[in-house]
Amino acid sequence: MEISEKKVYTFGGGTAEGNATMKNLLGGKGANLAEMASLGIPVPAGFTITTEVCNWFGANDHSHPADLKGQVEAGIAHLETVMGGKFGDAANPLLLSVRSGARVSMPGMMDTVLNIGLNDTTVQGLIHDEVSKRFAYDSYRRFVQMYGDVVLHVRGEVHDPFEELIEAKKQSRGVELDNDLTADDLEELVGEFKALVAKQTGSPFPDDPWTQIWGAIDAVFLSWDIPRAVAYRRLNDIPGDWGTAVNVQAMVFGNMGDDCATGVAFTRDPSTGENKFYGEYLKNAQGEDVVAGIRTPRPINIAGKDPENPLPALEEEFNDCYKELVEIYLKLEQHYKDMQDIEFTIQKNRLWMLQTRAGKRTGFAAVRCAAEMLDEGLIDEDTAVLRVDPEQLTQLLLPVFDRAAKAKAIEDGKLLAKGLNAGPGAATGAIAFSAEEAVRRVEQGEKVILVRVETSPDDIQGMHSAEGILTSRGGMTSHAAVVARGMGKSCVAGCGVLDIDYNAGEMRVAGRTYKEGDSLSIDGLTGEVLDGIIEVKPSEIVQVLINEEMNPDESLLFQQFNRIMALADERARMLVRTNADTPVDSTVARKFGAKGIGLCRTEHMFFEGDRIDAVREMILAEDKAGREVALAKLLPMQQGDFEGIFRAMDGLPVTVRALDPPLHEFLPHSAAEITDLAGKMGVEADKLKAKVESLSESNPMLGHRGCRLGIVYPEITAMQARAIIQAAIVVKKEGIEVLPEIMIPLVGKVNELRIQRKIVVEAADAVFAETGEKVEYMVGTMIELPRAALTADEIAEEAEFFSFGTNDLTQTALGLSRDDAGRFLPHYVEAGIYPADPFARLDQEGVGQLVKMGFDKGRSTRANLKVGICGEHGGEPTSVIFCHKVGLNYVSCSPYRVPVARLAAAHAVLQEG
Amino acid sequence: MEISEKKVYTFGGGTAEGNATMKNLLGGKGANLAEMASLGIPVPAGFTITTEVCNWFGANDHSHPADLKGQVEAGIAHLETVMGGKFGDAANPLLLSVRSGARVSMPGMMDTVLNIGLNDTTVQGLIHDEVSKRFAYDSYRRFVQMYGDVVLHVRGEVHDPFEELIEAKKQSRGVELDNDLTADDLEELVGEFKALVAKQTGSPFPDDPWTQIWGAIDAVFLSWDIPRAVAYRRLNDIPGDWGTAVNVQAMVFGNMGDDCATGVAFTRDPSTGENKFYGEYLKNAQGEDVVAGIRTPRPINIAGKDPENPLPALEEEFNDCYKELVEIYLKLEQHYKDMQDIEFTIQKNRLWMLQTRAGKRTGFAAVRCAAEMLDEGLIDEDTAVLRVDPEQLTQLLLPVFDRAAKAKAIEDGKLLAKGLNAGPGAATGAIAFSAEEAVRRVEQGEKVILVRVETSPDDIQGMHSAEGILTSRGGMTSHAAVVARGMGKSCVAGCGVLDIDYNAGEMRVAGRTYKEGDSLSIDGLTGEVLDGIIEVKPSEIVQVLINEEMNPDESLLFQQFNRIMALADERARMLVRTNADTPVDSTVARKFGAKGIGLCRTEHMFFEGDRIDAVREMILAEDKAGREVALAKLLPMQQGDFEGIFRAMDGLPVTVRALDPPLHEFLPHSAAEITDLAGKMGVEADKLKAKVESLSESNPMLGHRGCRLGIVYPEITAMQARAIIQAAIVVKKEGIEVLPEIMIPLVGKVNELRIQRKIVVEAADAVFAETGEKVEYMVGTMIELPRAALTADEIAEEAEFFSFGTNDLTQTALGLSRDDAGRFLPHYVEAGIYPADPFARLDQEGVGQLVKMGFDKGRSTRANLKVGICGEHGGEPTSVIFCHKVGLNYVSCSPYRVPVARLAAAHAVLQEG
Repeated sequence: MEISEKKVYTFGGGTAEGNATMKNLLGGKGANLAEMASLGIPVPAGFTITTEVCNWFGANDHSHPADLKGQVEAGIAHLETVMGGKFGDAANPLLLSVRSGARVSMPGMMDTVLNIGLNDTTVQGLIHDEVSKRFAYDSYRRFVQMYGDVVLHVRGEVHDPFEELIEAKKQSRGVELDNDLTADDLEELVGEFKALVAKQTGSPFPDDPWTQIWGAIDAVFLSWDIPRAVAYRRLNDIPGDWGTAVNVQAMVFGNMGDDCATGVAFTRDPSTGENKFYGEYLKNAQGEDVVAGIRTPRPINIAGKDPENPLPALEEEFNDCYKELVEIYLKLEQHYKDMQDIEFTIQKNRLWMLQTRAGKRTGFAAVRCAAEMLDEGLIDEDTAVLRVDPEQLTQLLLPVFDRAAKAKAIEDGKLLAKGLNAGPGAATGAIAFSAEEAVRRVEQGEKVILVRVETSPDDIQGMHSAEGILTSRGGMTSHAAVVARGMGKSCVAGCGVLDIDYNAGEMRVAGRTYKEGDSLSIDGLTGEVLDGIIEVKPSEIVQVLINEEMNPDESLLFQQFNRIMALADERARMLVRTNADTPVDSTVARKFGAKGIGLCRTEHMFFEGDRIDAVREMILAEDKAGREVALAKLLPMQQGDFEGIFRAMDGLPVTVRALDPPLHEFLPHSAAEITDLAGKMGVEADKLKAKVESLSESNPMLGHRGCRLGIVYPEITAMQARAIIQAAIVVKKEGIEVLPEIMIPLVGKVNELRIQRKIVVEAADAVFAETGEKVEYMVGTMIELPRAALTADEIAEEAEFFSFGTNDLTQTALGLSRDDAGRFLPHYVEAGIYPADPFARLDQEGVGQLVKMGFDKGRSTRANLKVGICGEHGGEPTSVIFCHKVGLNYVSCSPYRVPVARLAAAHAVLQEG
Repeated sequence: MEISEKKVYTFGGGTAEGNATMKNLLGGKGANLAEMASLGIPVPAGFTITTEVCNWFGANDHSHPADLKGQVEAGIAHLETVMGGKFGDAANPLLLSVRSGARVSMPGMMDTVLNIGLNDTTVQGLIHDEVSKRFAYDSYRRFVQMYGDVVLHVRGEVHDPFEELIEAKKQSRGVELDNDLTADDLEELVGEFKALVAKQTGSPFPDDPWTQIWGAIDAVFLSWDIPRAVAYRRLNDIPGDWGTAVNVQAMVFGNMGDDCATGVAFTRDPSTGENKFYGEYLKNAQGEDVVAGIRTPRPINIAGKDPENPLPALEEEFNDCYKELVEIYLKLEQHYKDMQDIEFTIQKNRLWMLQTRAGKRTGFAAVRCAAEMLDEGLIDEDTAVLRVDPEQLTQLLLPVFDRAAKAKAIEDGKLLAKGLNAGPGAATGAIAFSAEEAVRRVEQGEKVILVRVETSPDDIQGMHSAEGILTSRGGMTSHAAVVARGMGKSCVAGCGVLDIDYNAGEMRVAGRTYKEGDSLSIDGLTGEVLDGIIEVKPSEIVQVLINEEMNPDESLLFQQFNRIMALADERARMLVRTNADTPVDSTVARKFGAKGIGLCRTEHMFFEGDRIDAVREMILAEDKAGREVALAKLLPMQQGDFEGIFRAMDGLPVTVRALDPPLHEFLPHSAAEITDLAGKMGVEADKLKAKVESLSESNPMLGHRGCRLGIVYPEITAMQARAIIQAAIVVKKEGIEVLPEIMIPLVGKVNELRIQRKIVVEAADAVFAETGEKVEYMVGTMIELPRAALTADEIAEEAEFFSFGTNDLTQTALGLSRDDAGRFLPHYVEAGIYPADPFARLDQEGVGQLVKMGFDKGRSTRANLKVGICGEHGGEPTSVIFCHKVGLNYVSCSPYRVPVARLAAAHAVLQEG
């Protein structure tokens, strides 16, 4: 095995042998530490052992290359020089940390050892008084514990044996907190820990600092191949031969006294994106203490002080260090050209930077940072577009709770439960337990939260009327969740602790009982369910863009959003269409930038008003003649719907899908409902019941639906085709540019499409002949069955366009019912069997193969085949990027996902390089 | 377009220019006529225009190559010379037929014109007396009618206008049958027909024989591209550029008087295969008359005379012709080396052969013919194997009605209804409307027909006990049909006219009412349902091989069957295993030649006796501990089952599948059953009901089943693995050679298999450690989801074998629920959308791609991967041949399909080369 001569790269003291580009050799952490050091930023000095050494170690029976020893020793000499102090020295001991650091971050997967170099002799070098004595022994016992666990594998069957000793010590001392143990207690514990190690390993604890450091280095190398790390690599496609680097660094301490501190800061506000330095610190504390939140952290600067509780700022207490920190943060932002999340420690009035990385931010902050950094000339347009995570855009579009009002509600104990954050946005209103009640209350001017065990297509009207939807059953892809996201409604789903009792007309939770009409609030961004009304307002973007109730000039956020979106559209190759079934949805989507409708589900119109009666009459008809009578009633209704949609989409293509769901979805199922409907329709209840039963299916998803309906009942396809073409002719006369695309669903074999296409063409020709008018239209198909993808070359002979229905394609390719997967899919995702819910994020490895195959085969037969996707995945960024890579013409998604998909489409181009 | 110089091939008069090998150029019919002519067999002389001319015609604006005219005229001169008479001659007119004839038979798709050459002049040449006058005008009117339709397209909107004229003529004459019209009537009709043609086409009917012949030839060429022919080609993968040949042949007539006759014959008995000449004829008749069955046909020879109704034989009435016919049939059998189905006509005491082709035969006849022709030295061993259609073998294995007894029953009006012939074989016995009642009656010594609306896994015991199963609902792949075929039971399914009323305990059909215990018979070969008891006997093969109640030496059929099967096994490369869940089924399958078990469904044992109680206890357990208690009860039961199966399969591999169906399949669903079970189990009915409801699924086929159970409840997999390994160790100690293969179902992603495999290996290692014994075993998976096939390379990393579960693979690839497809799949097959039920015959184009992909990808990772198939398709011949082509190691099918699959596997090899 070949290995480079240079195995150790030092950093610190204003220089470094490595830099940020050397991640493959030095790992991410090592490369970044080198980069900071080169910038002259004070990082604790240290060195990085290369990933090559890790691989050599693995391939050579866990031994070291001969020259490694000398290079490590030289590295330690280097950091002694920079930091002052000496490793293993009794008087002025320098302590070291050893950390893993692979090419990409593998959080928590591999091992770390701190405070290396302590033994009964060197510990004395840290002790100057009582305060430093406690610090010294606390550091010492932490070291023995960590080394014992990580390097020597001293572990218990159930409990950590070191923690058991600490517990015993506290009991014998009659104290509760670790902090209450004295320096002497801790010294005793060190002795007990070492005895434990000796007993379990059969050898005394290694007191020699050099033995310690080599033990820690080897432990990190070994941790590259422990099962959890191997599993993580497999899940994240990280090759085993990348190896990990090892970072050896001098320890610095923020907890040595009142001239010490530790803190975190953001170079801009991570919540709003405003360009102001923002952070917190704690005096005489370790980094963990800031995170743990036991002590109230103080503001980093005077500007950040809370007027109500004005704690002293770092700017006041450590003014020199603060000034240096400001210089550093400005330098880091300039260097990395992004908002940074930084960690620092002040040890005896000296500032040390521990880490800098791109700061996590809200969607609001992402947009503002990107727009303002572009203005500042810090980044270019491409970078500005890449800086906004597409998924985060949804935060900008949805209604929000007034921040203070919600905080107060939680303080007042009004948080009732937490479910799945299935549809972001805030909603507040009166409880309705049925769709009808929701509609009724909304008509009376109330705002409503629809509360159901789960929802079904019958509830669509109620969901439309409601502010938000809350269910006790169903996952992130349940009917409620999917439809809510499509409508841009807030939704908390699968909140299992709710006890919803339709009969009693009440919901029980957290010891309280809620009746219809009682007030409730839900936060779809967090999954929280809260008692009472909390003030909600539409997002600023929606106020400007959709509701047009706010002037664009007044909204900085809107202007910045608009700017980023415009830059994105300039870059994207793929178009974004929308899934919309009504003129209203179409208009919203168009305002969000949709370039057409990719999926108009005709059956969603079937539930409106009295239409369902005609639909049911059609289903219950004895023969074709009877069906045609009912279809004739539906024709003008459907035509009217299409006219409205065509007008809203003037100049843009509209894909209309022929009837898809199984007919039993339009019939009632309970005995009472059947009796009711039978009376209304003037048929015998028994006869109706028999019809309902005869239509019931074991697996409706794989049943008599899609084009199978149009094959058995060609008159349905004919009516729908006629409604579309007639509508197109009507609006064309009005001067509307109309581009209808008629889509046949659930085709598995080209013959099906051939038969359906013929019916459509005949219906269109008949309308042309009757009216003397013509419109251009296309006929295409959904590719939503594996067989369709496998034989897409044949299907493309009859199809002018394809639209991948990746919802059903996922269901069939994985053999996974979206409605039923809730019982085991969460377990699957948790166990890492699937990296994500395949209904939310396209399973590229499996379903993606079918998409690629379908695309390639389709284009092989018809070079100009238009190809899109209209599953839920069309609005999910990683899936959108995948579609771009395959070569699709467009993605289609629900109106509120359109901006997300537009941005993702731009990212796809920019990621190509 | 290039075209050969020779465009016309003549035959007749003891010679021919073509022969049987020239099907591509002359079509099947032309090549065979040439072959017969070359053999010196008297066929009406004629000639064939090549398929090349058809293609030239299509590519050149429906014109002819310049030299075609001369070659056709020479052809007609040739047939005039051979036949005597002259085309278009007034005194001795020769009439011609023009028929299509493609490379493969396309029955009824293209056009034919007979009696060409007739006009008012030539018709006189046929008239010698009153009898011949009627014949002459009848031929003439038929010609004008046929030519008017086929060549001149004179057709009505609704009714055939020629038939309307005939109807009118009959009314005006006051007669009922066409035959009652006189020669004068027919002469009048000819005039009326011609007037009709002139009116509809605007031109007089062509009287010139040469105009007629060219019109007919062009009509045949044109018919190659009419829609029905194009559709037929598409469905049958016949390329459009094959073209059709045109056969022009002299007409001969069997209806010119009492010195004329026409008949059909088989060179051996098509029912039994016995080597005797067998046939029927009619005097003074046309071929259609024999088929129409209006007149009782007479036997061809004295040996075939019916003692009860001794009509004169051809051998007696036309002795010279008969002797010639015998010579010819012997020559044909010798030449074609197969049993022939021949058609002949005697015109004025002269014999003409119209057609010879391989005769259709029963399975019994196929075996006997093959074995005896092999003995006779007529065919070689390969040919003998190919001569038996694998599918037909089932006829030899199933119980049969006594032929006379059934005929009498039908004569007595006992035929009640006809359903789907879902499981061949005859069954007779007392009606039972429930599985329990079936078991009870059988225990009391009765034979039972289980009559259900449809069946479910709960009915397995009853189905096992019953002689046959009759259902009123469900298709060829319903639970009843599939299970019955698996068990080798007779089954008539989906017999919709049965009105089965469980509450009243009766079945109403054909105006009669049947109670439990009433007698009924069903014929699964025909789908017939008959009143009362009809004598049934097991097939001879089963008597010898399975029941061992008949000496093999006594059964000629068995010896011949055995011989063919032995020859097949010598040739087959693929092994045939069986799907069997019990020692009894295993033993039967082994006797039928199974080389192992390819699928043992452990859950089928769960319904036996009290086991279901332990299963239900496991399902209803609150936690893992509770489940483990119940599983501990199941363990010894499962182990015992496996021991029995391993013993039956000594020396052969046994693939055991881990639990597959969703758990709700083991629970009752009706309120009454739930209450009942709750009492039995000592739990609250409400709680049980809630559990049943919580387990119910929208699409159970795509739900919580297969390895998803073992992932969520690993203890189930662990128990089953332990039962298998413990059983293997027990029987190994008895000296049994045991080869267990543990199969994980419904894997979609390699991670699932990895987790399940680990559980199995751990359980096995534990057993080895406890017992100090070891057995070899394999762990593999089913490939039954598209995603598994798409990622089979990864899955093969963890799998030692694959077994394609093509039932589920078909359901998912086509998005087609086997349980629900009955509503539209028959329509699909009828409309030619799918050529066959894809659950019966593997959809090679779609699902087959996944099988091939899964195989290739699997082998790419693991070169020695063992691959089989265990869906229903494993016993279907075309699917077996496909599996061979892909390269599979074995197919697995139900015991009674094993011989079918063995023979198909041999055919696969022989078809290769």
